[in-house]
Amino acid sequence: MSNAIRRLNARDPEFLSTLDALLAFESAADERIDAAVSEILRAVRATGDAAVIEYTRRFDHLDVSSMAGLELPHAELKAALDGLTVERREALRVAADRVRQYHERQKIDSWSYMEADGSVLGQQVTALDRVGLYVPGGRASYPSSVLMNAIPAKVAGVHELIMVVPTPRGEKSPLVLAAAAIAGVDRVFTIGGAQAVAALAYGTQTIPQVDKIVGPGNAYVAEAKRRVFGTVGIDMVAGPSEVLVISDGSGDPDWVAMDLFAQAEHDELAQSILLCTDAGFLDAVAAAIERLLPTMPRREIIAKSLAGRGALIQVDDLEQACAIANRIAPEHLELSLETPEPWVAKIRHAGAIFVGHHSVEALGDYCAGPNHVLPTMRSARFSSPLGVYDFQKRSSIVHISAAGAQTLGKVASILAHGEGLQAHARSAEMRLKD
Amino acid sequence: MSNAIRRLNARDPEFLSTLDALLAFESAADERIDAAVSEILRAVRATGDAAVIEYTRRFDHLDVSSMAGLELPHAELKAALDGLTVERREALRVAADRVRQYHERQKIDSWSYMEADGSVLGQQVTALDRVGLYVPGGRASYPSSVLMNAIPAKVAGVHELIMVVPTPRGEKSPLVLAAAAIAGVDRVFTIGGAQAVAALAYGTQTIPQVDKIVGPGNAYVAEAKRRVFGTVGIDMVAGPSEVLVISDGSGDPDWVAMDLFAQAEHDELAQSILLCTDAGFLDAVAAAIERLLPTMPRREIIAKSLAGRGALIQVDDLEQACAIANRIAPEHLELSLETPEPWVAKIRHAGAIFVGHHSVEALGDYCAGPNHVLPTMRSARFSSPLGVYDFQKRSSIVHISAAGAQTLGKVASILAHGEGLQAHARSAEMRLKD
Repeated sequence: MSNAIRRLNARDPEFLSTLDALLAFESAADERIDAAVSEILRAVRATGDAAVIEYTRRFDHLDVSSMAGLELPHAELKAALDGLTVERREALRVAADRVRQYHERQKIDSWSYMEADGSVLGQQVTALDRVGLYVPGGRASYPSSVLMNAIPAKVAGVHELIMVVPTPRGEKSPLVLAAAAIAGVDRVFTIGGAQAVAALAYGTQTIPQVDKIVGPGNAYVAEAKRRVFGTVGIDMVAGPSEVLVISDGSGDPDWVAMDLFAQAEHDELAQSILLCTDAGFLDAVAAAIERLLPTMPRREIIAKSLAGRGALIQVDDLEQACAIANRIAPEHLELSLETPEPWVAKIRHAGAIFVGHHSVEALGDYCAGPNHVLPTMRSARFSSPLGVYDFQKRSSIVHISAAGAQTLGKVASILAHGEGLQAHARSAEMRLKD
Repeated sequence: MSNAIRRLNARDPEFLSTLDALLAFESAADERIDAAVSEILRAVRATGDAAVIEYTRRFDHLDVSSMAGLELPHAELKAALDGLTVERREALRVAADRVRQYHERQKIDSWSYMEADGSVLGQQVTALDRVGLYVPGGRASYPSSVLMNAIPAKVAGVHELIMVVPTPRGEKSPLVLAAAAIAGVDRVFTIGGAQAVAALAYGTQTIPQVDKIVGPGNAYVAEAKRRVFGTVGIDMVAGPSEVLVISDGSGDPDWVAMDLFAQAEHDELAQSILLCTDAGFLDAVAAAIERLLPTMPRREIIAKSLAGRGALIQVDDLEQACAIANRIAPEHLELSLETPEPWVAKIRHAGAIFVGHHSVEALGDYCAGPNHVLPTMRSARFSSPLGVYDFQKRSSIVHISAAGAQTLGKVASILAHGEGLQAHARSAEMRLKD
C-alpha cells in the first residue's frame, strides 16, 4: 500500500501525456442528482418556507412547525464560543484576527478623474447587500471554512451575512457555531442541501433573498449553486484539493512527506505531487512516506489518494519544475527550496504560493492570513483566491460635461451610424450645440 | 402602436409586484439547442480541426480544406482599417484611445508586507496567458464590442488574444476587422457558433487552448460557454440590454425619449424605464415618444420593446426613485437631474451611472472610456462591468519565517486537531523547534 505512489521522470517522452492524464478530473454528471435538485429548487421557489421545512424534515430528520424553529439565536453562537476550551477559543481568535488583517488590504476603493473639458469618469465601488454562506454539516464541518468565507464578506462591508448549516438529527458543531460568532455572521439557519441554496437564492417568507452564495458543499449543493447562478452570484464550484511541492533536495524529506499527506488526507481524490531535481531526495521522501504512513489516523484515505492521484516526479532543473507547475496551475504550491525567492515570480498560475521550508500549507489553511478557498482543477489559470473583491462590485461613473458631449457626441454618432443604430446616434446628436 | 408604453405610479399598492413582473426575464431552456451544443462540443473535443472545418462548412457554407483557410492574416485586418473612410477610422481610433486610457486605471498591482517576525504575506497579480474573444457575425456584428472586449485584455497584459468571428458565405465586416487591428488582436479565425467556443476551450491541432472566453453570442454560443465554464473562464452570460432613466422633470423630454429609444432599438426584449417625479414631464415624454417614433428607421423594434417591456413611472420623490433603481439594479442608469451629484452615492446597484443631462448612454456605448459590457438582469447586485481585472488573477504569497512558524504552527495544530486533520497538524508541528 505505502509504496504505491507513482514515480515519474520529466525526461520520459511520454511524461506530458502521463501528467495530463493524472491531472484530468471530471465530476461525472449524475442525472438523479440533477433531477432531484431541479425539483427541490422548483418547490422552494413555489412555496418557500413550507418546502424548506418539509425537505429539512425529510433529509435532516428535524421536525419543526415553522421556520422560527430552524433559526439559531445569537445567544447560541455565543454560548458555543464560551463553551470552547481556552486554547481553542484563542486559536480561533488569532486565526480570525490574522485573516481579517490580511483581507483588509484587499479592499477596492472608488476612484475618478476629471478631464480637461470638465467631464468626470470613474468607478464607484460598493459592497454586496446580502450574502449567503453555505457550511456543510457532519464530517466536513470545518470552522476554518466559516472564517475564510465570512471574514472577507464582512471586511467588504456586506450588510447582512446569512449562514446555513444542516444539523442532521439536531447535531451541531460547537466549533462551527463559535467560528460564526467570531466572524460576525448575522443570522444562522439550520438548513442544508439544495433546499438551503434555493431559499437563499429565491428568498422565502422568512429567509431574505441574498445577492451571492458562497461556501463548499456536496454534489447536491454544487448542482443547486450552478443552477441558481445568474439569479444570484456564486463562488467557484470547487474540485478536489491539490498540492504541488517543488523541491531542490534541500530540507527534510519527512516534512515533505507530511505535507503530501496533509493534502491527501482530505479525500481520496485529493492530489499530492512532488517535483524534485534530486533523485536521492525523491528516494528519501518515498522512504519517509512508507515509514510515516502507518502512523497516520487517516492512513487509508491518504494511501488511496497518493496511489490514485499522487506522483513523485524527477525533473532536470528548477526552470523545468516551474514550467510544469504553470501547466498544472495547482491550488497550493510549496517552493521547498534553499533559496526560494527568485522562483516566486516564475510561477504564473497557482492559487497560493508557499515560499520556503517553513511555509507549510497547513499554516495557510488556518491562520497565516490569506484565504484557503483557492482555485482548483487548473482554474488558477483564470481565477483567484476568494477575497474581499468577491464581495464588492463596481459601477462605472460617466459624467460628461456639455463641452465633452460635443466632442464625444460626434465620435459616438459616426460609430453608431456605422453599426446601424440610429437612435444611439440621434441621442448623442441631440446634445450637440451646432 | 406608439402610445403603447405603460404608465405606472409608484404609489399604486400593486406597483412593486407589477414592477417585478415587468423585470422578470428568463431565457427559456431549449432542449434542441442543448443537445446540438453537447454534440458539437464532443465532436470538436474528439477530432479538433476536422470537426471545426466540417461544422463551418455546414453552418457557415465556407468550404476549406484546412484550418489555414480559416485564419485571417494580419494584412487583411490592416487592409480593412486602411479601407475605412478617414472619419470612421479616426472615430474608431479616438474611441480605442479613450477606452484604453480609462482601463489603464483598473490594473491591479501585486502587494506584500512583512510582519515583525520576518514573515512576508502578499498577493502576486498576473495576467491570463491566452484569451479567446467571440465576435458575432452578420447583423449583430459590432466593432465597438471588439474594442470593449479586446482592449481590457491587452491592457491587462494578456499574452495572446485570439478572436473568432463567423463569416457566413465569406461575408466579413470591415469595421469589425478594423477594430481588431486597432485593438491589437493577435490572431483571427473565421469560425463561429458552439464549434468556435469548443475549439478555444479545448484547443485543436491549430487553435491553442485559451484560459478564458469573452464576448457576446447567440443562444448556441451562450450554451457552449456555459458548458465549457470550468475548463476555461467565461465572462457573464448577458441578458437583454436595459436602461433606467431617473428624471426630476428638468431637461428636454425629446432627449429622454430618444435615450429610451436608443435602448429599445437593440431588440424587442430590451428594457427602457423612466422614473420621474413630475407628471407633466411624463406626459411630455409620452408625447415626444409618439412624435419621434415614426421618424426612427428601427421604429418597429423600438415600439415592440417599449410596449412589451418599457414603462413611464411616476414617483413621489428622488429618494423613492433611488430605492426603485436599487431594486432594479439596471445595466445602465441615467441620472437626468438638474443637480445629479448628490444622488450618485445613493445608487448601490447599477452597471454604469450616467450623471446629468449630457451623459447620454450612447457616449458610454462607444467612446466615453468605461466598458459597455455591463451586468444585466439585476446582476449588478453582485457583479461589475467587464474590466482589466477580468483578465488578471491573483496568487496568494505565504512566506513564513522560522520564527513565524513557531507561533502560527501552534495555532494551526490546535485548529487542525479540532477538525480531525492530523496530517495538517503534524506538518505544522514538525516545523516547531521545541
